[in-house]
Amino acid sequence: MVKINENFLKLPGNYLFAEIKKRVEAFSKENPSAEIIRLGIGDVTLPLTEEVVDELHKAVDDMAVKETFKGYGPDQGYDFLIDAIIENEYNSRGVLLDRDEIFLSDGAKCDTGNFQEIFGTDNIIAVSDPVYPVYVDTNAMAGRTGDFINGKWTKVVYMPCNEDNDFTPQLPKEKADIIYLCSPNNPTGTTISKKHLTEWVNYAKENKAVILFDAAYSDYIKEDTEVKSIYEIDGAKDVAVEFKSFSKKAGFTGTRCAFTVVPKQAAAYTETGEKVFLNKLWARRVATKFNGVSYIVQKGAAAVYTEKGKEQTRKVIDYYMENARIIREGLISLGLTVYGGVNAPYIWLKTPNNMPSWDFFDKLLTEVHVVGTPGSGFGPSGEGFFRLTAFGSRENTKKAIEAIKKSLAI
Amino acid sequence: MVKINENFLKLPGNYLFAEIKKRVEAFSKENPSAEIIRLGIGDVTLPLTEEVVDELHKAVDDMAVKETFKGYGPDQGYDFLIDAIIENEYNSRGVLLDRDEIFLSDGAKCDTGNFQEIFGTDNIIAVSDPVYPVYVDTNAMAGRTGDFINGKWTKVVYMPCNEDNDFTPQLPKEKADIIYLCSPNNPTGTTISKKHLTEWVNYAKENKAVILFDAAYSDYIKEDTEVKSIYEIDGAKDVAVEFKSFSKKAGFTGTRCAFTVVPKQAAAYTETGEKVFLNKLWARRVATKFNGVSYIVQKGAAAVYTEKGKEQTRKVIDYYMENARIIREGLISLGLTVYGGVNAPYIWLKTPNNMPSWDFFDKLLTEVHVVGTPGSGFGPSGEGFFRLTAFGSRENTKKAIEAIKKSLAI
Repeated sequence: MVKINENFLKLPGNYLFAEIKKRVEAFSKENPSAEIIRLGIGDVTLPLTEEVVDELHKAVDDMAVKETFKGYGPDQGYDFLIDAIIENEYNSRGVLLDRDEIFLSDGAKCDTGNFQEIFGTDNIIAVSDPVYPVYVDTNAMAGRTGDFINGKWTKVVYMPCNEDNDFTPQLPKEKADIIYLCSPNNPTGTTISKKHLTEWVNYAKENKAVILFDAAYSDYIKEDTEVKSIYEIDGAKDVAVEFKSFSKKAGFTGTRCAFTVVPKQAAAYTETGEKVFLNKLWARRVATKFNGVSYIVQKGAAAVYTEKGKEQTRKVIDYYMENARIIREGLISLGLTVYGGVNAPYIWLKTPNNMPSWDFFDKLLTEVHVVGTPGSGFGPSGEGFFRLTAFGSRENTKKAIEAIKKSLAI
Repeated sequence: MVKINENFLKLPGNYLFAEIKKRVEAFSKENPSAEIIRLGIGDVTLPLTEEVVDELHKAVDDMAVKETFKGYGPDQGYDFLIDAIIENEYNSRGVLLDRDEIFLSDGAKCDTGNFQEIFGTDNIIAVSDPVYPVYVDTNAMAGRTGDFINGKWTKVVYMPCNEDNDFTPQLPKEKADIIYLCSPNNPTGTTISKKHLTEWVNYAKENKAVILFDAAYSDYIKEDTEVKSIYEIDGAKDVAVEFKSFSKKAGFTGTRCAFTVVPKQAAAYTETGEKVFLNKLWARRVATKFNGVSYIVQKGAAAVYTEKGKEQTRKVIDYYMENARIIREGLISLGLTVYGGVNAPYIWLKTPNNMPSWDFFDKLLTEVHVVGTPGSGFGPSGEGFFRLTAFGSRENTKKAIEAIKKSLAI
């Protein structure tokens, strides 16, 4: 008799964004004329830049002719893109990396979801709370999280990020082996300071833990005091793996490209305490379960790093960050308490009168047709908060803020 | 202390194709002037068809304009491609499927590698021997295969496919919960007959087992008596999941698109014997760990199914199958024993004088600069065999056969 992985049955309900989609579709069906503004799922709305589009066309032409046609590429990615990443994302910030420390993939969701596979199932994971749900859900599927009781997994170390601690995850008192950090944070839009990240790296070294650092939003950092890569912290290469993506950086949510950095000295241990390097394990995983990112897409991603590409990409990010300012200031003018939106495309607002997150979601959806994301969907400490994204059009962003003003005035 | 997944340490050496690459690179370095003909890894060499190229360009243009730009698509794929798949791959052969029974992905390697995640780790897997190494390696990583001793995993049920049984996997006497079948088979190039597949479906029903059916090469089937989908067998929807790909069908090895069919009635069981439907579990896995295939690539894949697309694709397959004929007949004329190459792009030859597979690999590489794949890399029963692929150019295929003739004459 073939048995299922029963860990899947422990997962509570739908994946967060699937649940949102379901509620929005149900509302739409009943109210077909309602014009819905979507500031819920963090999806971009501006087209790819000219530079990327040109390069995508050239890559398609390469595939049309025998002489330049590309079959299977290297599992880890083409050097032309890996070199551009190393130069622009790392060398420019004083970080040196070798080519084989970069692994290209079709998305940071896949990478942050799959990376746990190379670790034993008896490790304890620690996550910021609230945080991107993929970290916890994928560990739940692997059987690392215990049981889901009263909105929490029994074996997960939650690090509450709230107003009292400036939304910064604090070093845990409990044992933690695999620590997920996300900065700029999804959903709170806040960053972890250099000082705190240094504490985290030291903690990981002392406790032989590993940090899985999600920096998918690092391009939205405006303030020079913030780090854009964990490798800007001394010693981080020994204990940290970093995830970045072209999704929010360059509008690739529908085009699909991301990368993971696994420094050669980062390690974990066997039961008997023997050191095993993560790079080699992840390389084996990638070679066995992945066949590389589409050549066409890799060419498009590389165009993000040309001089013109960088300029065009910067303009897109500036556009979204102006939306962030509009949302942030609009909500503040209503007397709401608001976080994020300065170094991140996410605005994290406190619901009025401590209204439960999903109630606030339903209120905005049904009353003014604005879709946001309920904070509780990101973890227990997200309850009473709500996420809006800056990825809409300027027009819709302004409309949404006006509509929210109207809704809250009722 | 963070612990690794020690199952990874049990894996023997490199992934097969990584090992081949290593040996070829080492030889190339020492013999820079040697012109190497690669008939090893099953990678296509002809460019994408005109119809696909045109559609890829149009899709890139869609991404360049706000009005037609696509962000995150549906995790399971766009309906335009799913509908084309259902109509052309299934309805045309009398098989009915619903949209939500199809899951698009970036490759059959990923899907055949990842699908085991939704099953418990105490299931016993059965595999044809020899077979595509990804099935066994990914189960080894998950801890389902026991230990690797004398070239075999202690907990895997191997189903030897050899000359005595026409390379057809026989129903196992041991308990088997998850059965991997591949037809047309990689590497032997042979197919499982309708009669035998019916036996397998009945076996799975009687034993509450599940069949993971890899049909990545079904477009290479020439003989009408063979099935192109396991769902042509009565009752298969209850017990079988099917994997197909655009890689070999339409030259997408570097473009990346595939799909998996999970019928809604296919099920596995909890420890207590409760039925759980696989479609729901896999949908949860996909929603949590995957963000869909690149829109551009999905548009290109859909072009494979237009009238022109089908005609152009057929011509490419015919070209490769003519190569298969040339290899097959060339080797037979040398007095070698040869299988496959009729309903598959793979030719499976018996090494002369029972030479070990890797010795024959080294002999061909160093003497005549032809790269094939050692049969033992596909499983213990592959020892003494060697795989050649029909995916080279006509010119190289002919050259390779002449060279092999020369080598074997020495």
